[in-house]
Amino acid sequence: MTATDDAAVLAANEAFYRAFETGDGDAMNALWSHRATVACTHPGWTAINGRTRVLESWSGILEGSRGRVACLEPVAHVLGDVAFVTCNEALGNNLLAATNVFVRETDGWHMVHHHASPVARAYVKDGPQDGDAVH
Amino acid sequence: MTATDDAAVLAANEAFYRAFETGDGDAMNALWSHRATVACTHPGWTAINGRTRVLESWSGILEGSRGRVACLEPVAHVLGDVAFVTCNEALGNNLLAATNVFVRETDGWHMVHHHASPVARAYVKDGPQDGDAVH
Repeated sequence: MTATDDAAVLAANEAFYRAFETGDGDAMNALWSHRATVACTHPGWTAINGRTRVLESWSGILEGSRGRVACLEPVAHVLGDVAFVTCNEALGNNLLAATNVFVRETDGWHMVHHHASPVARAYVKDGPQDGDAVH
Repeated sequence: MTATDDAAVLAANEAFYRAFETGDGDAMNALWSHRATVACTHPGWTAINGRTRVLESWSGILEGSRGRVACLEPVAHVLGDVAFVTCNEALGNNLLAATNVFVRETDGWHMVHHHASPVARAYVKDGPQDGDAVH
């Protein structure tokens, strides 16, 4: 892992949110890996596996996409030629937590998985509080 | 990717759920990578980054863990020395969707990230339905 790798992964992550916010289907298509098998878990859904289904799901989402999409607090974890990013997503007034997995290909980092889920609360350093229903 | 890799990754994934169900903190600790930086996004939470915090969070969860934990429909995506698994988790009557990321180390596959989120509905092949609030 190098600072350069981290920056490149975070740039790919940012490109994903730019495509999402602008409803740019071509950019979204180019961003997802064409070589590796891909998957996507939208908020409240089970996983979708396979490029065609994943991109179909995004096509529907992008058609309806109009609001601001912001990526907050991204943290890159680079593991050789694969990396995952944890971040938060601000979609209008909604806050989501996301995991984005990327693979390094000859022309840069491409997405292989996206998992987003609604946030009920931010992590508290001291751990679960009484009454928290975690897991 | 080989069938052997897939099987080894799915076995590590299964070991994670076994540790979870039995409340086995030692197994959970051994399962998470000691070399890579790790992260965890519990249902409804933002991401926790760092081994100490992640394991602290699991310690709290395992202390309260009593019910059945089952992993359903796991799909392994092996990308060289890193792999991610999408699966569903049945926790009592609750259904969650999970992403588990593993890295291959000298003594086998170790977890570097877990993200679980509540499922409102299973993915429908034909894509988002009218009225679905996806993303």
